[in-house]
Amino acid sequence: KEHAVRVDTPRGSFSIGGMAKGSGMIEPKMATMLGVLTTDARVSPDMLHRALQESARNTFNAITVDGECSTNDSLFAMASGSSGVAITEDLYPALVEGLLAVSRDLALGIVRGGEGATRTIAVTVRHARTVDDARQVARTIANSPLVKTAVHGADPNWGRILAAAGRAGVSFEVARVTVRLGGILLFEHGLPHDEAAPAAAEILKRDTVDVEVSLGAGDAAATIWGCDLSAEYVRINGEYRT
Amino acid sequence: KEHAVRVDTPRGSFSIGGMAKGSGMIEPKMATMLGVLTTDARVSPDMLHRALQESARNTFNAITVDGECSTNDSLFAMASGSSGVAITEDLYPALVEGLLAVSRDLALGIVRGGEGATRTIAVTVRHARTVDDARQVARTIANSPLVKTAVHGADPNWGRILAAAGRAGVSFEVARVTVRLGGILLFEHGLPHDEAAPAAAEILKRDTVDVEVSLGAGDAAATIWGCDLSAEYVRINGEYRT
Repeated sequence: KEHAVRVDTPRGSFSIGGMAKGSGMIEPKMATMLGVLTTDARVSPDMLHRALQESARNTFNAITVDGECSTNDSLFAMASGSSGVAITEDLYPALVEGLLAVSRDLALGIVRGGEGATRTIAVTVRHARTVDDARQVARTIANSPLVKTAVHGADPNWGRILAAAGRAGVSFEVARVTVRLGGILLFEHGLPHDEAAPAAAEILKRDTVDVEVSLGAGDAAATIWGCDLSAEYVRINGEYRT
Repeated sequence: KEHAVRVDTPRGSFSIGGMAKGSGMIEPKMATMLGVLTTDARVSPDMLHRALQESARNTFNAITVDGECSTNDSLFAMASGSSGVAITEDLYPALVEGLLAVSRDLALGIVRGGEGATRTIAVTVRHARTVDDARQVARTIANSPLVKTAVHGADPNWGRILAAAGRAGVSFEVARVTVRLGGILLFEHGLPHDEAAPAAAEILKRDTVDVEVSLGAGDAAATIWGCDLSAEYVRINGEYRT
């Protein structure tokens, strides 16, 4: 997976490129993510590290294939300075934006290439009390085997989404929760919108499925990208031999 | 699933019976556990409740099929007193033992009947700092899709067991960890015992597989019962329609 962007600033342009591999088997016996980002901007190691952490939070650290962590995921960023564009605090947001664009593309590529995956699931939790709450609920939904198999089978099962949210360890009131699939409202005021199920089932046949849950508890939001769970995942990991 | 035992005490005998269902689809759209235990011992509601909680902790609350919680799992205990045996503090351990025996049988039956399950996995974590640590590590291993698919494929993959333990949120030193499958030592002093792999692979073809991890961090232990992950699980839950 490769991606590159050009960032234009008042003091000239610089480039950011990147490549990543993941969701496959590398030594030692685990799915391992390796990513390298490069830029010709002139930027201090400290500032590049800060920008990398900021951009990775919502990209490389917001994806999941099966909830398993690898012992050796690595992400590197290197800056040559050859563009002559010096990144000072005023240009820092542009650097982060560029890193985000490249990282988002690479991270989503890793999910798309997930073992046995046929669909990407973007789980966005809004109106949480804190960003950590939103991430925790989104991650629990994205890793739920019942949600993942429902998406695989194109079943608009709002009950499984709600049940996964409910066991995420974050408190909220069901009466304030809304659940949307591909923008279609399936659950609101504690009640399902069953008449919307056929349209939502069609949405679920797409390559990327948007699951949106609003908790009605605050203003924080987060997105986690995952994938469906197929019999092929079981085959790949059941037949693999040490 | 049904089971009953007879408990003999110095003041006479009493019976404990139970039945449970689970791992299937009941309203509303979730795998739901229902269990009822009955006894003809004479026991106060408070003491029966205490004994039920104590026996459920290591039976009904120590099983997992896919890590999903149901919204409506229920376990009841009822005492008629018709045996005439009054349970006072001195007989409390006998009551708990009886409840444990019945509960263990029923809880394991639920796991054995888990969706798509072909094998039961008993994950025991020993030498943890606290019981909570032991349970947390055991539960993470029992719910790991990579461990579950490895057991399904009869692959003695100590690396996946160790990786799941490592992401459980409990700190330990790898150099002190041992991993055993069916009593066969596969990992010790930070190194694998690869010569033991063929024998362990044979063990993994049994109906029940014992996974034992010693953390070398303390004296606490816990067991969690789970099952393997098969393509059949994906089929059942992917083809299910709301």
